Amino acid sequence: MDSPLIVVNFKTYAQGTGEAAVGIATACRDVAEEAGVTIGVAPQLCDIYRVSSQVDVPVYAQHVDGVSPGSNTGHVMASCVQQAGAVGSLINHSERRLNLADIEASVRAARAEGLTTIVCTNNIPTTAAAAALDPEYVAVEPPELIGTGVPVSQADPDVVRGSVEAVKKINPDVQVLCGAGISRGEDLIAAMELGSVGVLLASGIVKAEDPRSALEDLVSQL
Amino acid sequence: MDSPLIVVNFKTYAQGTGEAAVGIATACRDVAEEAGVTIGVAPQLCDIYRVSSQVDVPVYAQHVDGVSPGSNTGHVMASCVQQAGAVGSLINHSERRLNLADIEASVRAARAEGLTTIVCTNNIPTTAAAAALDPEYVAVEPPELIGTGVPVSQADPDVVRGSVEAVKKINPDVQVLCGAGISRGEDLIAAMELGSVGVLLASGIVKAEDPRSALEDLVSQL
Amino acid sequence: MDSPLIVVNFKTYAQGTGEAAVGIATACRDVAEEAGVTIGVAPQLCDIYRVSSQVDVPVYAQHVDGVSPGSNTGHVMASCVQQAGAVGSLINHSERRLNLADIEASVRAARAEGLTTIVCTNNIPTTAAAAALDPEYVAVEPPELIGTGVPVSQADPDVVRGSVEAVKKINPDVQVLCGAGISRGEDLIAAMELGSVGVLLASGIVKAEDPRSALEDLVSQL
Amino acid sequence: MDSPLIVVNFKTYAQGTGEAAVGIATACRDVAEEAGVTIGVAPQLCDIYRVSSQVDVPVYAQHVDGVSPGSNTGHVMASCVQQAGAVGSLINHSERRLNLADIEASVRAARAEGLTTIVCTNNIPTTAAAAALDPEYVAVEPPELIGTGVPVSQADPDVVRGSVEAVKKINPDVQVLCGAGISRGEDLIAAMELGSVGVLLASGIVKAEDPRSALEDLVSQL
Repeated sequence: MDSPLIVVNFKTYAQGTGEAAVGIATACRDVAEEAGVTIGVAPQLCDIYRVSSQVDVPVYAQHVDGVSPGSNTGHVMASCVQQAGAVGSLINHSERRLNLADIEASVRAARAEGLTTIVCTNNIPTTAAAAALDPEYVAVEPPELIGTGVPVSQADPDVVRGSVEAVKKINPDVQVLCGAGISRGEDLIAAMELGSVGVLLASGIVKAEDPRSALEDLVSQL
Repeated sequence: MDSPLIVVNFKTYAQGTGEAAVGIATACRDVAEEAGVTIGVAPQLCDIYRVSSQVDVPVYAQHVDGVSPGSNTGHVMASCVQQAGAVGSLINHSERRLNLADIEASVRAARAEGLTTIVCTNNIPTTAAAAALDPEYVAVEPPELIGTGVPVSQADPDVVRGSVEAVKKINPDVQVLCGAGISRGEDLIAAMELGSVGVLLASGIVKAEDPRSALEDLVSQL
Repeated sequence: MDSPLIVVNFKTYAQGTGEAAVGIATACRDVAEEAGVTIGVAPQLCDIYRVSSQVDVPVYAQHVDGVSPGSNTGHVMASCVQQAGAVGSLINHSERRLNLADIEASVRAARAEGLTTIVCTNNIPTTAAAAALDPEYVAVEPPELIGTGVPVSQADPDVVRGSVEAVKKINPDVQVLCGAGISRGEDLIAAMELGSVGVLLASGIVKAEDPRSALEDLVSQL
Repeated sequence: MDSPLIVVNFKTYAQGTGEAAVGIATACRDVAEEAGVTIGVAPQLCDIYRVSSQVDVPVYAQHVDGVSPGSNTGHVMASCVQQAGAVGSLINHSERRLNLADIEASVRAARAEGLTTIVCTNNIPTTAAAAALDPEYVAVEPPELIGTGVPVSQADPDVVRGSVEAVKKINPDVQVLCGAGISRGEDLIAAMELGSVGVLLASGIVKAEDPRSALEDLVSQL
């Protein structure tokens, strides 16, 4: 089993905002080093520069728009994200949905800046559709499981298995992450046994009483 | 060459609103009968029942949401569209974009009511993505050509050819329509020679001085 | 106490779709006549023509866009709504929010077609803001109470009172309706005693076992 | 005439992204100091921390959402913006429209963090509506003039005058800025003579060959 990709989404949790974001990112870097795995962090947009300039950790944006330089007030341009120190971006998270044309434009714009793209989807058909847009990763997260603590690998293993199969047919260059309800070491192993190459997780780490312990538990069974 | 599918989108043109919608739908039916082809019409949502109850023509909605019965004020439910007399719906037209999860839900909801689904897209990758959602048709329309009178088959034949190829690989059950700038008989022939099975058109017919003549010209070379 | 305005929103309830919409509209008309009050109905967009052409009842659209004749596929144009037989429209319902510029454009477009406008809002400041756009009515509905059966007049009378006061200051030509959780005669009376001139209601009537009885109860205390 | 508020919106201009944002912000600070006026800057979200930690200049976000700590991936939380060093935010810019309920929530959330709020609007009625939400500033910008170089004070002085009057009636605590097409000293003076207290401007400075000279020209007639 290859080393997985783990991405911790800070959402807009108070525990992952501002200087606290730097703290959790530091914990992610430390645990990643100890365990010899890759743990990326996805802080809020306004925290990307602060985190990336202080912690040696792969930083992902939570969202990027498909806009070019120009009149796009309030939008998130890939080159700005990249210059702020991010290495990639989530796109189309269930809490920040985009229309299809915009997902495609975002993937294209992010790729042009050398950013790794993770397109989030909600079921097997949308995962297949996202794979056709040629991102590096598709992260399938049934919205009804997000934040529940019930891992998708347990509640609905078929959506992960089916997503992996569908992606293989459509575009074998794309890899599948799985999200929603993941927080423990066994969830990560289960996710990988279903064919995913890693996980997207959030509250299980960021809102944990002790994020460092939660991260150590997460990687304990690799 | 099989008989093409022709769908005339009335948009919110004054010339295709209310009783005028019935008039253009009647012209579509007459020309279709004379030429032995199928011409569908896509009037505004509030005109579907009026047209379908007065003219024997396949009626398409311009938009349908993926909602189920419930608290969805102002949304367009597939079963309502179907009960109003429509046989299908456009989904994700460039003037009414949906997010990816909603396109998938719309296709699924429409199919459950027996409606034919035509998902509109803007380029080859989004066409491929839409095909993965398993609609009956994908209609590729480069937005920059819509309403120009310059047919996509002439301005950008590769987007049609590429769309047809991409769809064949992803999901051969799906057929490709092409739109944007189509209005004349030679445009329709050109579109079909590029591998599409029909066309989506709008201003070229609805805003024509004489819609019936425009329709007759459109089918003249079949 | 003047005769109230009562508007029954059919949402996308199965019980208010298609021919069933005609049935409930008929009940509304009958009870309105018996009680000497005005009961309007807001069926789905695709049902407006069907209802208005069969039942002599004031029909409202659930939504209208601010678009003019042109390239606006899937949008709801005021003149189409009017030609389909509607006398007015809800605008900005909590299930179909619009941005501020679009609310203003919708109110203006609807007014230009002689449609009565009811802008929905969620609290006192947004009610005040909506009043500045000069619609005929603002309907304040705290979203957390919609569909609960707990009437706003009881759960949060201050939001109704405060809305009435705020509107009086900003634009005394505008009248306040109240919605959310309304279903019974006493709720209507309570709403009017708080200064509103009528109510917007939905599930309490449309999903009632016997809509006609529910309507009779609603107007029983006038 | 009081000292005006000048806010330079960097949009997603390449000339105002990343390290270049720091450069323009520095020019703004220098010119502001020399002229004894206040010039704020609104860089992209990912550049707020970088600019605020390097340049002593009032930084505004280009957009803020009304969200609280929680599951809001990709959203812009007021407390994050504040911790990144911003002192205020644009809200509802014409390139980043929000629905009415969200504008109200954004103003409220921003105010709770001590951020100065500037709600952008497109005409007199929406300016009046925005004033009812009690922000510090409303910035009226007819969208058709944005980026044209034709100042609103010249092309449509009545929209500024009318906005000032409408705001005075609705909520005299709110002050009016004006935007769209502003770039030169005489535009600023004209804007203030029409009753506004400052300007929002963008391309005229950020895309100028020499932004520092452009800023010096802007404040030259005060």
